[in-house]
Amino acid sequence: MDAIDYKKIFSEIVNELSSEDEKGSVATYIPELANVDPNKLGMHLTTVTNQHFAYGDAEEAFSIQSIAKVWSLTLALKHLGADTWQRVGVEPSGTAFNSLVQLEYEMGIPRNPFINAGAIVVCDILVSCLKNPKEDLLDFIRTSSGIPSIEYCPVIAESEVKTGHRNYALAHMMKGFGNIHNDVDCVLDLYFSLCSIKLTCKQLAQAFLFLAAGGVNPATQQQVITPKRTKRINSIMQMCGFYDEAGEFAFKVGLPGKSGVGGGIVAVHPGKYCIAVFSPRLNASGNSVKAMKVLEALTTKTELSIF
Amino acid sequence: MDAIDYKKIFSEIVNELSSEDEKGSVATYIPELANVDPNKLGMHLTTVTNQHFAYGDAEEAFSIQSIAKVWSLTLALKHLGADTWQRVGVEPSGTAFNSLVQLEYEMGIPRNPFINAGAIVVCDILVSCLKNPKEDLLDFIRTSSGIPSIEYCPVIAESEVKTGHRNYALAHMMKGFGNIHNDVDCVLDLYFSLCSIKLTCKQLAQAFLFLAAGGVNPATQQQVITPKRTKRINSIMQMCGFYDEAGEFAFKVGLPGKSGVGGGIVAVHPGKYCIAVFSPRLNASGNSVKAMKVLEALTTKTELSIF
Amino acid sequence: MDAIDYKKIFSEIVNELSSEDEKGSVATYIPELANVDPNKLGMHLTTVTNQHFAYGDAEEAFSIQSIAKVWSLTLALKHLGADTWQRVGVEPSGTAFNSLVQLEYEMGIPRNPFINAGAIVVCDILVSCLKNPKEDLLDFIRTSSGIPSIEYCPVIAESEVKTGHRNYALAHMMKGFGNIHNDVDCVLDLYFSLCSIKLTCKQLAQAFLFLAAGGVNPATQQQVITPKRTKRINSIMQMCGFYDEAGEFAFKVGLPGKSGVGGGIVAVHPGKYCIAVFSPRLNASGNSVKAMKVLEALTTKTELSIF
Amino acid sequence: MDAIDYKKIFSEIVNELSSEDEKGSVATYIPELANVDPNKLGMHLTTVTNQHFAYGDAEEAFSIQSIAKVWSLTLALKHLGADTWQRVGVEPSGTAFNSLVQLEYEMGIPRNPFINAGAIVVCDILVSCLKNPKEDLLDFIRTSSGIPSIEYCPVIAESEVKTGHRNYALAHMMKGFGNIHNDVDCVLDLYFSLCSIKLTCKQLAQAFLFLAAGGVNPATQQQVITPKRTKRINSIMQMCGFYDEAGEFAFKVGLPGKSGVGGGIVAVHPGKYCIAVFSPRLNASGNSVKAMKVLEALTTKTELSIF
Repeated sequence: MDAIDYKKIFSEIVNELSSEDEKGSVATYIPELANVDPNKLGMHLTTVTNQHFAYGDAEEAFSIQSIAKVWSLTLALKHLGADTWQRVGVEPSGTAFNSLVQLEYEMGIPRNPFINAGAIVVCDILVSCLKNPKEDLLDFIRTSSGIPSIEYCPVIAESEVKTGHRNYALAHMMKGFGNIHNDVDCVLDLYFSLCSIKLTCKQLAQAFLFLAAGGVNPATQQQVITPKRTKRINSIMQMCGFYDEAGEFAFKVGLPGKSGVGGGIVAVHPGKYCIAVFSPRLNASGNSVKAMKVLEALTTKTELSIF
Repeated sequence: MDAIDYKKIFSEIVNELSSEDEKGSVATYIPELANVDPNKLGMHLTTVTNQHFAYGDAEEAFSIQSIAKVWSLTLALKHLGADTWQRVGVEPSGTAFNSLVQLEYEMGIPRNPFINAGAIVVCDILVSCLKNPKEDLLDFIRTSSGIPSIEYCPVIAESEVKTGHRNYALAHMMKGFGNIHNDVDCVLDLYFSLCSIKLTCKQLAQAFLFLAAGGVNPATQQQVITPKRTKRINSIMQMCGFYDEAGEFAFKVGLPGKSGVGGGIVAVHPGKYCIAVFSPRLNASGNSVKAMKVLEALTTKTELSIF
Repeated sequence: MDAIDYKKIFSEIVNELSSEDEKGSVATYIPELANVDPNKLGMHLTTVTNQHFAYGDAEEAFSIQSIAKVWSLTLALKHLGADTWQRVGVEPSGTAFNSLVQLEYEMGIPRNPFINAGAIVVCDILVSCLKNPKEDLLDFIRTSSGIPSIEYCPVIAESEVKTGHRNYALAHMMKGFGNIHNDVDCVLDLYFSLCSIKLTCKQLAQAFLFLAAGGVNPATQQQVITPKRTKRINSIMQMCGFYDEAGEFAFKVGLPGKSGVGGGIVAVHPGKYCIAVFSPRLNASGNSVKAMKVLEALTTKTELSIF
Repeated sequence: MDAIDYKKIFSEIVNELSSEDEKGSVATYIPELANVDPNKLGMHLTTVTNQHFAYGDAEEAFSIQSIAKVWSLTLALKHLGADTWQRVGVEPSGTAFNSLVQLEYEMGIPRNPFINAGAIVVCDILVSCLKNPKEDLLDFIRTSSGIPSIEYCPVIAESEVKTGHRNYALAHMMKGFGNIHNDVDCVLDLYFSLCSIKLTCKQLAQAFLFLAAGGVNPATQQQVITPKRTKRINSIMQMCGFYDEAGEFAFKVGLPGKSGVGGGIVAVHPGKYCIAVFSPRLNASGNSVKAMKVLEALTTKTELSIF
């Protein structure tokens, strides 16, 4: 399999998708996302045997946003283990529309750790478990990815605070149900910091390569998490990684993945590779139009997916 | 991989799960399910290389119920192709609780072809496409599975009609939205007939082995459906095969599968095997308690899942 | 009060509302409603002392639709008494949007006897209580109103059957919950017949005058129902008579009333009068735009409402 | 009518209701409500001609809670007039269960000014309109009621802040929709202060007597608000004053009213009287069990309601 020439495939895909160039629109709720060049397109695939295939703006840093929630979940599982699942579920969330009523009907237990409510609970767990939550989480991110230069981006975090009314509402509602144990402002400070991180496609592909390699990051040889938990994180990415389009992504791409409103998507082929794609224009569900198309074309051309 | 001694693993699993014997309860809404011996336990795994591993009541016929919806979807895709997705989605349905409001909010388009509303739409498609819907569907089931003895069970179908008020409600609501084109009674006659089929674990594992083998049933060498559509059916089983427990099944088992309220579950490991497990006691979501446990233990012990 | 010159007030109102002439649109789901002249405007007010005030098309017969549900409720209360409230509630229904999820959440008990689901349950009660449901209900309508010429309109009823998928869905869902005791088709036959009746404003004002007169119809001197139940029917009209605009009607008009999608509204001032207004153009909630305006102007000009 | 001996009626009612003594339970979410003697029972009826009828603990001060929302609405209408209805509706809210999804579906516009979300919006309006919101609102309450001794109760307000997570969630969600213009903490400070007021039944009956008297408080001869707005406030109390039991209250009592979780209910018979009843044990909807029974018996015995 390593013999596949992904670089050639990338070129073909870009040619074929040129008619899709103008579809979707960049997120505008904070200036740091609104001001991104919408025509950027980067791809980077790294195999578990450390082969690298890149295309376009693969070394352009962008706001990875919700993709970072994979780290908070991983670290919470390392600290709290299976008890994490007392506080957050593993089920897809259905429509965005229903998020609040579900949270209410299910007594403040979010459906999964990747919807906002669930990621906020995971941050609450980290605030309880970690001595210096923001520093310790950043340490984990740097070590597990093997990229010591990763930083929170305070400008983005500050913009998120200013527009994050919905997240405050979710946190207060869950506090009312007893599922947030710490101060709401403190939990959301960690949450917004986590979502503020900027990375390149190349860095992203390295950072989450451990999910393709049984929990070991091949770049550092470090065992980030156990093989069993690696599978579980992958399954949650499969079921819940794309807001209310998880089924669409499974149907078209057939790989576990996680998207962010910054236009990035990370996808994992267990045992094979990790790929990051970046293209800022989003569809109505908040997923990058072109990154989804690229990944669909990739698994179609290689005829390889988990299904 | 074929060297794995699944028979030994089955014995271990049964030993370890003996403490779970009394959990859950048999479906009671029709006498044909209520009167099943709750202590039955059957397993049958068939590899794509035609190796067979069985345990317990693997040759006991039982009502496969919703598992049969995989056939109706497969046949609809063969006839209507991608246009099927104009009529039914590919997204998980969230909670059972929300099913009706989602159907209303989404203008009569069911979330996926495995929830009742979606399977009814698929039956409506078949009524439109097939000359003799009931006969033609049964023909397809017999041919694709290589089991010419399969029959509808009129007693079960009749009981379903008598208690199927909710399904009539769904069909009429969708007809109001224009998403049922044929007579409601005619569509539901096909639907209830489809769900009335009885099979053994051994037969089930053979019938759906094509999903593990790129669309070809190894038992018959027949190409049931294209490799690409095989992957798509597997992805829908992964995302939507277990009512509101799809995430739980992905998390614990890590294989595409489909359950029925008769206590059966079919799971598929693409490229490797198809397994059917039967144990009639159900959990609150309508999935067999013990069949889920058996499959969880199987992928844990073999350390093999799609993730 | 009887000295008020309602005829003069009607003229003033019509003058003042001429700018509203084109607002709203006629119901189109059945030809019998779609083909009505949208510019018709009729009003008829009858006092408990038998004074009459009419305007415009007050003697034009039109389809009274849901207004007829006041009769079915009245007759059910006469037969089943307070036990009626085991089967249907007395609360407003909130948004139309929520109707199905509420019915599900509340186990098949409709919120009130005037939403479709509730009126269907009331018809089910009548099917159980009456020897010849259709004949006996029509007898009651004729006798209580003192208008022996009232008939069901089979053409309208037949059109309703053809387009009434949503009502079939509601009835089947409630049957699933055990809250419909009789055959769905039989219950809906009564329901659609009831809603098919055509009356003039003058007849309507006479038919429901008993609600303004402590249960006695002044035109016939007949005690239709007890004074206590009269108050209760009025209170339900106040709270639930205008779909999801009950609050708007209470706020602007301040009288109990009931509307129908044929463009009619009946309103009751207890102790004083009953008024019927007919204007076929409806707003988005299915209530006559101009009839609501006329009634708002009436209670504003007379400075008399129940509040 | 003034000749009715309400005092005698009160005695009869108390006798007849003695079997209901133990039903319901006191609110426990803050200590100031949890520690109230559950057996207190007070009633005070004041007619528009200034006759007074009292029973039991009519001069015992208790936390009036949501009853105070009638004042905030009245003052907002005086300042913002009909524009208030751009920010909050006049429709009943249906079930408590649906409150959040409705708020979301309706883009942050609460259904009415008496549900929590609506009262918070009204407080936001007052924060925008008033120079010193807390002082100015208290001034209005003192002047309009003619009771200069009314004070906010800081101990109760502080307890509400500590447990008011749900209200913070509502306020943040509406801020996300742009329907809260001021700082959330500042708005909720006013809201919790408003709800902290303690009054006796006698004071309550005097404070809201203006609603029975065309907007003039007979005790002070002050025109609190116009006759037209008085009717509108009464209509909103009728439709929305009892959480999800507004229909029940209209059906059984037949008067506009407003309840609070402190166990108080105020009811208004336009043109006749205002009555306050206090009994701390609540039903599942948060309304005083016995106060509702007392008012039902009152309008039954006098045979006088607005219907």
